[in-house]
Amino acid sequence: MAKILTNRSDDYAQWYNDLVLKSGLADYSAVKGCMVIKPHGYALWEHMRDELDKRFKETGHQNAYFPLFIPKSFLSKEAAHVEGFAKECAVVTHYRLKNDPNGGGVIVDPEAKLEEELIVRPTSETIIWNTYKDWIQSYRDLPLLINQWANVVRWEMRTRLFLRTTEFLWQEGHTAHATRDEAIEETRKMLEVYATFAEEYMAMPVVRGVKTANERFAGAEDTYCIEALMQDGKALQAGTSHFLGQNFAKAFDVTFQDKDNKRDYVWATSWGVSTRLVGAIVMAHSDDDGLVLPPKLAPLQVVIVPIFNKDPEAVTRINKIAADLMATLKLNGVRVKFDNDDNTRPGFKFAEYELKGVPVRITLGARDIENNIAEVARRDTKGKESIQLDNLAAHTLQLLTDIQSNMYQKALNFRTENTTKVDTWDDFMKVLDEKPGFLSAHWDGTPETEEKIKELSKATIRCIPLNNELEDGKCVLTGKPSLQRVLFARAY
Amino acid sequence: MAKILTNRSDDYAQWYNDLVLKSGLADYSAVKGCMVIKPHGYALWEHMRDELDKRFKETGHQNAYFPLFIPKSFLSKEAAHVEGFAKECAVVTHYRLKNDPNGGGVIVDPEAKLEEELIVRPTSETIIWNTYKDWIQSYRDLPLLINQWANVVRWEMRTRLFLRTTEFLWQEGHTAHATRDEAIEETRKMLEVYATFAEEYMAMPVVRGVKTANERFAGAEDTYCIEALMQDGKALQAGTSHFLGQNFAKAFDVTFQDKDNKRDYVWATSWGVSTRLVGAIVMAHSDDDGLVLPPKLAPLQVVIVPIFNKDPEAVTRINKIAADLMATLKLNGVRVKFDNDDNTRPGFKFAEYELKGVPVRITLGARDIENNIAEVARRDTKGKESIQLDNLAAHTLQLLTDIQSNMYQKALNFRTENTTKVDTWDDFMKVLDEKPGFLSAHWDGTPETEEKIKELSKATIRCIPLNNELEDGKCVLTGKPSLQRVLFARAY
Repeated sequence: MAKILTNRSDDYAQWYNDLVLKSGLADYSAVKGCMVIKPHGYALWEHMRDELDKRFKETGHQNAYFPLFIPKSFLSKEAAHVEGFAKECAVVTHYRLKNDPNGGGVIVDPEAKLEEELIVRPTSETIIWNTYKDWIQSYRDLPLLINQWANVVRWEMRTRLFLRTTEFLWQEGHTAHATRDEAIEETRKMLEVYATFAEEYMAMPVVRGVKTANERFAGAEDTYCIEALMQDGKALQAGTSHFLGQNFAKAFDVTFQDKDNKRDYVWATSWGVSTRLVGAIVMAHSDDDGLVLPPKLAPLQVVIVPIFNKDPEAVTRINKIAADLMATLKLNGVRVKFDNDDNTRPGFKFAEYELKGVPVRITLGARDIENNIAEVARRDTKGKESIQLDNLAAHTLQLLTDIQSNMYQKALNFRTENTTKVDTWDDFMKVLDEKPGFLSAHWDGTPETEEKIKELSKATIRCIPLNNELEDGKCVLTGKPSLQRVLFARAY
Repeated sequence: MAKILTNRSDDYAQWYNDLVLKSGLADYSAVKGCMVIKPHGYALWEHMRDELDKRFKETGHQNAYFPLFIPKSFLSKEAAHVEGFAKECAVVTHYRLKNDPNGGGVIVDPEAKLEEELIVRPTSETIIWNTYKDWIQSYRDLPLLINQWANVVRWEMRTRLFLRTTEFLWQEGHTAHATRDEAIEETRKMLEVYATFAEEYMAMPVVRGVKTANERFAGAEDTYCIEALMQDGKALQAGTSHFLGQNFAKAFDVTFQDKDNKRDYVWATSWGVSTRLVGAIVMAHSDDDGLVLPPKLAPLQVVIVPIFNKDPEAVTRINKIAADLMATLKLNGVRVKFDNDDNTRPGFKFAEYELKGVPVRITLGARDIENNIAEVARRDTKGKESIQLDNLAAHTLQLLTDIQSNMYQKALNFRTENTTKVDTWDDFMKVLDEKPGFLSAHWDGTPETEEKIKELSKATIRCIPLNNELEDGKCVLTGKPSLQRVLFARAY
């Protein structure tokens, strides 16, 4: 079988692009920077969305939907926010086209110019806080715990499928609270929702941390994040949860009356994850032959491939075994398919399901069946076993669990091996080039040093880990005193 | 209790607006014509979406996601399509803002002008068929059965919450087929999916029909539709399914090689329903005291309200009864809430749940409990019954089923009573004014007569019903011969 993908070791970026395109996750589109999410990629996103949505609802949040468009003036109301987002937004200026009088198709109708331009939302704090002003009067209206599933647009010059696209799908939680402490608790609670989801469902270990001032969300007092390590040693920010203080309440004049009849500004949080997580799953686990998907999120978890011979009785028997197995697995909630398409040879099917990352493949061969066995192949380790037919369903269920935990453990081992303590600038640069990953190093706490390190090394501070050990040390660049190590990496 | 809503008989349009706003379905937004879908409205939409999505998947469709933006030139490629959509679209012309040098916040950066303007999708045929060109080469790639859940924008001058908004949420199916017959079969199949969903879930009877040429989707060869009757006698188009012929395949040059190695253009369908359906549910069933929601779609199906007295033993007993009842109902998949909030009086709760359309309310009163009974109130008829506690769960489950079918039957009776055969123009105008609803009348089949009738009466041909009886007659306006009756109505 011809090699479908570039090897990771030859060109990691090319491998990633090949894989996303050829496994049917996504495609380029006619619109610069925007992608088409294909059925396999969308199904993966749906499973992520459904699980996250369940967790949001379990923690008391409700979904709602706010407009796609934001009046231009709203962006300017929060000073830091406009700096962060005005530079990369799609601007709607007109609301009508008309036939080109010169016969060149359609042109923008100059008479249909908007009085105030509309921005396609890059994030929805402004339009939502403008609405919350009407919804919040008293402490009885708080907390207000709302989430939105939506598309957003940030005009990006350099895009990569899933990781950085002009339009992407995400969820954005926007909550309002009566006290600072409650808002901070919410911020951390949602970070933990993301972290456990990443670890338990994506099989991707993450560092829970807080961003430095330089890397904060535009308008936040604190940005919490989860950071994951990809196979090439680059970090990927997988989710953020922002404590917004009273910044947006002040910008949009949202106050409430407390139990003592005093008015105060409302405290806010926002938090989001996006289709970027699809890219994270690909990069965290997949190999040179295709996707390796964690069973809990794989659109298809088990595929059964028959290998028929000319014996019609064997065909009947294989069909019967497959039907029984399907029934048992489906009863146990497994997403399973029996691929008995005659027009495709088994070898081709094997390669295709390998490429698409189906965790378990069961081959029902006419000869094996005579011996009451079937071949069970696992995608993660590529191991194969012959399993007694009467144990096939139970084995498969256990295997799905094993693959999920094995994938997590493998990724965790990789991260442990590729997290290095460095104490000198020479080591810092050497490790970055020779053994890239997380670098745990002292930093003097100033934005200037952080900026300088970024210039010199292209590494950024990914986060200050939560519950970080305090440890006296010296900044890896300036030698100035430092109280704790922070995590550096080159990042997506 | 003060009257919350305008009565339907006083001002139907005002009643609708009051109800949507006060029951928490939606709110106006700062962006003209765009609404905020509030948690109660969004939960209703989620239940509709989930059930429809299940039905799409059961009929072999997969979800995908295509870009929000469409290059302006794409719209012009299908001649009829551009006529239909160019007049009402949001146009993105720039991709950056900058600080106003005169200090007035931010302004559009004139240097960030797009070479080709982008249209915010009003519907996605063009961007999708431009993509299908790359996905379809051979008959093996067909049929291609894809659906997308998305937001779309159509610039509307006159908007109404849910029924007609500039931005709305919808799904749009886009399928590609090897033959004309298969595409027509798909078009009709999806119409039937919509129709059964409307009847079985929304409890809303619909007429399945086909549109006249005047009312066709821009770019379709045939538009099938489901039409429902609202309580004010106006019709509402609740879903459409389009047979697009080879129009979009030709516009975007999408051909396939058939089994005999011949190339032909691909046949297409598209079909959609939107958040307009939320408005349809409201208008079809609700009353002067609030929403009346069909149990299968109601975000909350049963609410249990305790009426405590000072006796702590009674409190304990009520809490125990409520907990047991909740457990049994939840096991049966019922969405149920026990509202034991001390800060709100029972009367206030009753009005609130009535307004929000909760189908069943169970009151656990301290005195009733002593007699081993509870009061069960149904929202649709406002009937109340005293039910033995040991029969409470079973009664509630049966009641939910009864309410669902009663609501359907009531709406069906209403439609039957308000569908009138008319044979003269005088009758036509008289019935329209005195007993509005569907008018079943003969029409000579010409667009000119259709247009004239619309001018004179504001009634349009809603559809030519499928499986229509043939019947010789004379056009209600021109007296020219006609072979069948069609359905007229004033419509939303």
